[in-house]
Order: sequence, then C-alpha cells, then structure tokens
Amino acid sequence: MRKVFILSDHTGLTADAMARALLAQFPGLSHEMVRHPFLDSPEKVEAVAREIERTPSALVFSSLVEPSARERIRQATGEGFFDFFADYTPRLERLLDSRARPTAGLLHGIANHGRYHQRIRALDYSMIHDDGAVTRNYEEADVILIGVSRSGKTPTCLYLALHHGLRAANYPLVEEDLETGGLPTPVAPHRDRLVGLTLDPEQLQRIRAQRRSAGRYSSLEQCRWEVARAEALFRRHRIPVVDTTAISIEEIAAHITSEILG
Amino acid sequence: MRKVFILSDHTGLTADAMARALLAQFPGLSHEMVRHPFLDSPEKVEAVAREIERTPSALVFSSLVEPSARERIRQATGEGFFDFFADYTPRLERLLDSRARPTAGLLHGIANHGRYHQRIRALDYSMIHDDGAVTRNYEEADVILIGVSRSGKTPTCLYLALHHGLRAANYPLVEEDLETGGLPTPVAPHRDRLVGLTLDPEQLQRIRAQRRSAGRYSSLEQCRWEVARAEALFRRHRIPVVDTTAISIEEIAAHITSEILG
Repeated sequence: MRKVFILSDHTGLTADAMARALLAQFPGLSHEMVRHPFLDSPEKVEAVAREIERTPSALVFSSLVEPSARERIRQATGEGFFDFFADYTPRLERLLDSRARPTAGLLHGIANHGRYHQRIRALDYSMIHDDGAVTRNYEEADVILIGVSRSGKTPTCLYLALHHGLRAANYPLVEEDLETGGLPTPVAPHRDRLVGLTLDPEQLQRIRAQRRSAGRYSSLEQCRWEVARAEALFRRHRIPVVDTTAISIEEIAAHITSEILG
Repeated sequence: MRKVFILSDHTGLTADAMARALLAQFPGLSHEMVRHPFLDSPEKVEAVAREIERTPSALVFSSLVEPSARERIRQATGEGFFDFFADYTPRLERLLDSRARPTAGLLHGIANHGRYHQRIRALDYSMIHDDGAVTRNYEEADVILIGVSRSGKTPTCLYLALHHGLRAANYPLVEEDLETGGLPTPVAPHRDRLVGLTLDPEQLQRIRAQRRSAGRYSSLEQCRWEVARAEALFRRHRIPVVDTTAISIEEIAAHITSEILG
C-alpha cells in the first residue's frame, strides 16, 4: 500500500485532482491518499514533513506556494515529490516575461463575491425549479433538463448551479408525457433550452430498486418502456441527449456546458 | 489579451484547475480561457491544432493522454505547451516501476457506480434535510450545519453531498434560538456533528438585501444582532465555526471536511 500525500496551503483540490488523474494511469497500484490541506504555518508543515520522513517511498503531490514550506517537504520526500508550482512557474515567468507572485488558492477579492452571488442565485433558482415543482420563470432558465424519474436530473442541475452559476431547471417525464410522445406543456415553449437525460434501463432499475424496492416503478419492464419512450421523444423533438449511464455528475455537467450550450 | 487553451480528452476539469492555479500567480496578466474538452477524435484535435497555430503566443494546458494528439498539439504550440501527462508520467513510471496505461478521466467502472450512488443518496438526504424542513433522522447525518438565514448553509450542504458523499443537514438559527441562546431542540442531541457558519454582518446585509430589499430582515442592525448572538451561541456550546465571508463554497466545504470532520 503506497501512501500518497496531497499537500496544499489551501484547499488542495487542484493537487488532488492532478494526483488522481496521474495515478489513474496505474490501475494496478494499491495506494492510500492522505490529504493535508491548509498547511499555512511552519509548525503544520514540519509535522507533515516528519510524517513523510517516517513513510517509506511516499509519493507527495503538492500545490504549496510558500518557498520554505516546499523546500522542507522536498528535503523530507526526495524523489517522490511532485511540486507543481516549482515545475511550471519558472517556465511561465519566462513565457510571460513577468515575476510570479506566490498566491494560494484561486479566488479572492471582489471577483469572488460576484461569482459567489451568481452561484447562490443560480442555486436558489435551481432548487425552486427542481422536479417540475415550479414551472413559472422557465424563460429565465439557462437550461432545462428533462428525463424519467432517477435519470440524474437533480444532481446535474445542482452541480451546474454550484459550479457554473447556471440556472438549471428540471422537469420529469411522467407516464402521460411518455404515452402521448409530446413535449410536456410547461417545457414546450423552451425547446432550445432543453437537454434530455437518458440511461441504461438496467441501471435505472437498480437505482430505483435501491430507493423503493417493490412495485412497477422499479420493475425492469417499466424502466425499459420509459427509457425507450423518452428516447423516442428526444429524437422526435430533436432534443440533445446526454447518456448518464457510465459517467459521473462532473462529466454529465461538462457535456452539457461544452457540447450543448457551446 | 493572451489566449489560454485548456485541452482534454475528457472533461478538462483537472487541466483547467491547474491552469487557473498557476495563472493566479500572475495577477497582472490579461487573458482569455478557451476550453476544448472531449477531444476524442483526430479530426477534433486537428481543428484545435489549427486554431492554436493561428493564435500568437498561445498558452496551452493539456491533460490529453493520447500520444498522437499530444504530439500534434506540441507541434502546433511550441514553447507554450504545458503537457501535464508528458511531464509527470515518466517519473511516476520510474518510481512505481510500472508502465502507465493511458486513461482519460478519473472515474470508470464499478467503483464509479458505488461512488455515484453514495453521492445521490447523500444528496437526497441533504435536500430533504435542508433548512430544518425535516429534522427526523439527524442521527444519520454526517454533519449538521447551523447558522442564521443566508450564511451559506444550503450551498455548502449540497456541495458536501455532491462532492464528498456526505449526508449534510442544515438547521437555521431563528430569532427565538438567538434570544434564548440555547441549542435548538432538534439539533441539541447531536452536538458532536454540528458546525456553525458565520460571516461578516455587512456582507450578510448585502446578501439579504439582494434577496428581499426592504424590512428588518435585511437591515444592518438586525444582521449585526443575529451574527453576534449566533457567534455567542457557538462559543457557549463549543461548536466549531467556519467564517464564510471571504471564501468560496469549495473552500468552506474543504474546511469542514479537513479541519472539523478530520
């Protein structure tokens, strides 16, 4: 079991993502992640350095910006130290002909406040317009997701609001919609903002069974029928579709923002 | 205006985060981000390569894993090409004594499904237990956030659920709680799972005024009183506190998971 340390002056989310992307290329590697965010004092850095010194062949991924902290960790780790800032900052300084100013974290000051408020407003909107509960104000939506129950609409909407500040409504396709094959009345005027979610009926069945174990709702037959009808509806009305079967919420959201909203 | 390209076979979220962390060190740099996720065919790669060739002194941050795609982009970009996989994979191969298997994206297969379901269940829990709406089942919560209205409880709970799979409930501190200074009855038995959120009263006032412009709710005097009483309540009952004034939702969540939940 190889120990993998994630060190940061700040949240460590970036170093964590980089480490996981790199290690995903070594599927046979058995490893344990140890996260130390907010290393913002020499005492905290020293404690972690000692922990690393006691760990044989540790891998350390760091987005530490403080030079003395980086030096101490480099000394403690040796070869297994992946120091993102040390590796890239000098090259950027040269290309930009400018001196780097060590800065922990991504978002500070006024810009952050504007972005925070935008995301909070988007989240308010998305929660109110979840699951077809309120269908007024759809003209204010950036995107409206449609799909059968448990196709991933709610988490995707909340993710789009929290991360991208998008007003993301969602409307469930119920049996009546699926039988007639028409777009539900509340969403029909907003076809240009609709995105359909679909997924493998067997996975849908498993998800529904975990929620409510018995009955038609979680039968495979019902799931197959609903998915087939929903996909036919998407085709008929030329609604762009994202298949959520094998992908994470981040990936679904990335497909929607990049491919569909452009 | 320097153009900064983010290229990925996949969502590009990791390359995007790395690029932003590195560029945050150059606050004077005027730049525009151009994102090309899901570059999963030679045709798409070629189109982007040509766009880069037409862009003077482009910076390109890439988490492309496909070797021929990386080679084409390297040729198109020259010195401004930051190729995370090329830079780190050979060193990892040496340290791990193992060959890398190029893999786009972080999460695939069975593990992903388990994680997806955990997050969906956590999100269901967190939405039902938002804003004190339902206070049953608090013993199932991983964390219960308390704070005055608009202190950031809801976005933080949803983030904790979506990203960390945590069951995060939240309960608002209303005037009655603030007057008596006692822990509200529903949360009192779960003191070890409570985290308090607080923020600067002036910022609270601004946030409330954007939502509902007039009245006592969004007066500075009321905001000051509520925040002071809430902070006194946290101190009295030794509730750990996160100040949400100047930090993003990601940062609030990181503080809660790392410092408080350990």
